[in-house]
Amino acid sequence: MRRRQTRNKKDIGIKVIPIGGLNEIGKNMTLLECQDEILIIDCGMSFPDDEMFGIDIVIPDFSYLMANKEKIVGMVLTHGHEDHIGAIPYLLKNINIPVFGTRLTLGLVGNKLKEHNVIGDLRTVIPGEKFKLGKNFEVEPIRTTHSIADAVCLSVNTPAGIVFHSGDFKVDYTPVDGEPIDFSKLAELGKEGVTLMLCDSTNAVRPGFTASEKVVGQTIESIFRTAKDRIIIATFSSNVHRVQRIIENAVKVGRKVAVSGRSMENVVALAIELGYLDIPAGTLVDLRTARNIPDDKLVIITTGSQGEPMSALSRIATGDHKAIKLKKGDMVILSSTPIPGNEKTVSNVVNRLFEKGAEVIYSDIADIHVSGHACQEELKLLHSLIRPKFFMPVHGEYRHLIQHSHIAESLGLSKDNIFVLDNGDILNVKRDKAHIDRNQIEADAILVDGLGVGDVGNIVLRDRKMLSESGLIIATAAIDRFGGILVSGPEIISRGFVYVRENEALIEEAKQVVKDTIEKCLENNIKEWGSMKAKVRESLSSYIFQTTKRNPIILPIFLEV
Amino acid sequence: MRRRQTRNKKDIGIKVIPIGGLNEIGKNMTLLECQDEILIIDCGMSFPDDEMFGIDIVIPDFSYLMANKEKIVGMVLTHGHEDHIGAIPYLLKNINIPVFGTRLTLGLVGNKLKEHNVIGDLRTVIPGEKFKLGKNFEVEPIRTTHSIADAVCLSVNTPAGIVFHSGDFKVDYTPVDGEPIDFSKLAELGKEGVTLMLCDSTNAVRPGFTASEKVVGQTIESIFRTAKDRIIIATFSSNVHRVQRIIENAVKVGRKVAVSGRSMENVVALAIELGYLDIPAGTLVDLRTARNIPDDKLVIITTGSQGEPMSALSRIATGDHKAIKLKKGDMVILSSTPIPGNEKTVSNVVNRLFEKGAEVIYSDIADIHVSGHACQEELKLLHSLIRPKFFMPVHGEYRHLIQHSHIAESLGLSKDNIFVLDNGDILNVKRDKAHIDRNQIEADAILVDGLGVGDVGNIVLRDRKMLSESGLIIATAAIDRFGGILVSGPEIISRGFVYVRENEALIEEAKQVVKDTIEKCLENNIKEWGSMKAKVRESLSSYIFQTTKRNPIILPIFLEV
Repeated sequence: MRRRQTRNKKDIGIKVIPIGGLNEIGKNMTLLECQDEILIIDCGMSFPDDEMFGIDIVIPDFSYLMANKEKIVGMVLTHGHEDHIGAIPYLLKNINIPVFGTRLTLGLVGNKLKEHNVIGDLRTVIPGEKFKLGKNFEVEPIRTTHSIADAVCLSVNTPAGIVFHSGDFKVDYTPVDGEPIDFSKLAELGKEGVTLMLCDSTNAVRPGFTASEKVVGQTIESIFRTAKDRIIIATFSSNVHRVQRIIENAVKVGRKVAVSGRSMENVVALAIELGYLDIPAGTLVDLRTARNIPDDKLVIITTGSQGEPMSALSRIATGDHKAIKLKKGDMVILSSTPIPGNEKTVSNVVNRLFEKGAEVIYSDIADIHVSGHACQEELKLLHSLIRPKFFMPVHGEYRHLIQHSHIAESLGLSKDNIFVLDNGDILNVKRDKAHIDRNQIEADAILVDGLGVGDVGNIVLRDRKMLSESGLIIATAAIDRFGGILVSGPEIISRGFVYVRENEALIEEAKQVVKDTIEKCLENNIKEWGSMKAKVRESLSSYIFQTTKRNPIILPIFLEV
Repeated sequence: MRRRQTRNKKDIGIKVIPIGGLNEIGKNMTLLECQDEILIIDCGMSFPDDEMFGIDIVIPDFSYLMANKEKIVGMVLTHGHEDHIGAIPYLLKNINIPVFGTRLTLGLVGNKLKEHNVIGDLRTVIPGEKFKLGKNFEVEPIRTTHSIADAVCLSVNTPAGIVFHSGDFKVDYTPVDGEPIDFSKLAELGKEGVTLMLCDSTNAVRPGFTASEKVVGQTIESIFRTAKDRIIIATFSSNVHRVQRIIENAVKVGRKVAVSGRSMENVVALAIELGYLDIPAGTLVDLRTARNIPDDKLVIITTGSQGEPMSALSRIATGDHKAIKLKKGDMVILSSTPIPGNEKTVSNVVNRLFEKGAEVIYSDIADIHVSGHACQEELKLLHSLIRPKFFMPVHGEYRHLIQHSHIAESLGLSKDNIFVLDNGDILNVKRDKAHIDRNQIEADAILVDGLGVGDVGNIVLRDRKMLSESGLIIATAAIDRFGGILVSGPEIISRGFVYVRENEALIEEAKQVVKDTIEKCLENNIKEWGSMKAKVRESLSSYIFQTTKRNPIILPIFLEV
């Protein structure tokens, strides 16, 4: 009897289903499914790539969850960065499930839900304290270090054994809050036996170790000591540790601190409320009264270190910021490195700041930022502690996942036990075996444009791309098809093609081409709208291409009169 | 008498006029003007930035030159990179002037002119041999080292003394062609006395030295020795030295070499013809017959190391290349680092290559590229050799120019003798004094789109940006204004807005909004087209924004019937 039970239990498998975060940076979301229960880990957003014209943000595809609502036992969060919590409001609008996270993480989620007018069932967890979810999952959040406070990795006990999810992490032996990774717990897990590890791959191509946040603190201190006038320092609002370091160093050199930028104000307020920021009384001043403070006694912390066009720092750089006008002698610090794709935008802001006479310190010229993600030696450390039977690299582009696989192999894990998945694949895991089923569930990038979620698809994006490249030309006419008469028009209207006032001859000739084509159609009794439009499109686009070597969208619009 | 002449001669000044290359990377072009003579140094193009939708390339503004054609005595080139020669065809289409350059430089210019069907008066110069231009200029090209063969810096003797232009350079003590910088000549110049130095600032923010091209050769060799199957290596076609190193190492490991990609084929043919590539007989094979060569005996050199969408490497990555189909075991090497702004495109290509099963080596994981530009220590070396009276940093964004100024200051040059200009400013230089006149000539970025040069301006670009973000909606109707009757329509047509088939209700409601607005206009006797269109634009855009939070361009088109 007992033996049978054991065998049965051994046979219960789980499915690991990545909906986002594989072959991309961002929109991290993974499901653990066992029998009739689904546990969700994280629910992040990502930023649109260059081809996603007009898109605000990108979120994971919730179709599988919508079809399996009743199975969901809850969502567990690893930390409060946008790429892990940013899509939660979009999910909670449709499904009411409990969301588990540490205090700061849930604080950030709460702010986000408020913005979206969504109510959430948020439940605080404590690192080291296990909790059950459904009948199949027991979750233990474990303290880890990352570029945001209160980050955890997750140990999930399942019928197929322990699944360990690293979350995002780096190994910081000297974190700002004095709370390093719970190594003993990780070692214990490794000893107990972990069936599957999912691990952050963001920095898997970087050799060595990521430097401690402490290094940035030292750079900040030395820069603060040399500054003669006002200091303006930009960083990610969610990097509460960095903000803490900035404030500590401001205090050290006898300066007050003001905060600018909505998200920075919100996060600082939240972090103070929850006790994640330790600010001596009298240090924080209101930005509006900051003008009464001498320049050499003030530090302004702000957002926009990625050059975001509407951010406080961009507005300071262009002179559009209401409260902060740049002066010669100001020192501006960008405490960040550009996220891939943002390099040019950041350089533009730096150039504008220099032009305004500020001294600008940025990542090219000082160690003013450290990554939040583990480099190769740190990954090896985690692998060596956890010693999982199976390994699945997560959080990264394909090149990162492949490189992470190589690292796991180099540590002795068999190639057969390493699983590189794509979003929408399923990894079937039992205690002693695992295999991938490819392409099982829908896991597309869902594009959010204004209020529309998912209504901008490939056709609309293709049109936007074509419009952006050569604009469009509209040829319009009122036609009496019955009488075979061109009643009014044709009119030629263009947008994004050429500046019409300087190209009247071209437009006149185009008009003539359209007129001739319509009249020929009517003569030859071609009166079906589709055929007429095709003829006009053909003759006009060929005329335009010959004269300009451009390919605008050609849009014939005919009205029956 | 003699004294008077001297004084007179001392009084003749020159103007230094940057038309491109300041506060930007690319389209380098500088004028030296003295009395009624203009000498042009370089004539480069640049690539459009992200906001320049649909633009192919950017060239300098030639208006000042067009207005002063008869003054031009000639153009002198420093080297054959696109950012120094790319705009020549556009200038020579309008002005016939002699173009002076070294052999390879002119070979590349010749290819370019052929493509554009332009005839040029190209005159070969030899480093170290002086030549007169007009009555005011004597030019000496001086051997330097850069990431292209046959690069020179220029010493121009003028009535105001020597103007030294560094061109683009790095200090490579072990260049591939064995021809290092002519240091003794530079030292001699410094001794003789240089009035003004213009110097490359591209790497002015980077500390230390740029590594020698030799380092890349070593990396290539060690990679080639580990490769088991086919090797595909991408680099800039103009980097003849790199191509030479690749071929040498292919020969070392007993492999044949095939070339793919039009620009690579052209440059290799030219370099062989001019003797800049030394290839053992039997090494080069045709790509079409390369399939008969065993995988482990073949190296394919190709273009596309910047992830350019139409390049050979991109087509290999997507499987669209006709002759080269990627196989598991192939090794693909990107011998380059992404130019700022190209990071994501390059990553995408790398990911696609990995997905096809290739082993991919790129700059994140190996020392497979070195810069062609001098870092801080090399700049200091050049400053110390030339010891100019006045200094003007060129070739760089504002942050680079400023940093380069700091370097010059740190070497003891007075701040008053350093001039940071913008394109279109004029530096007036005499032997003992210099000053800037700001904003003197037109020096805009001229956008080339297809056959159009300069006809896409800010209005067209703004339209393209708006179209790319939210698309457009056209509301069209045929109206009998005299009778006050809406005869036909309104029709609603959109592009790049929403996928119409899935949003019929929205489009129907929009139609109703337009209909109501037109009818109200007619009722209220508002019959002027401008006013009617304004009303429709207003009501429709407000309806669309309320329902979707998007701002498409609204285009009412009415026909009188």
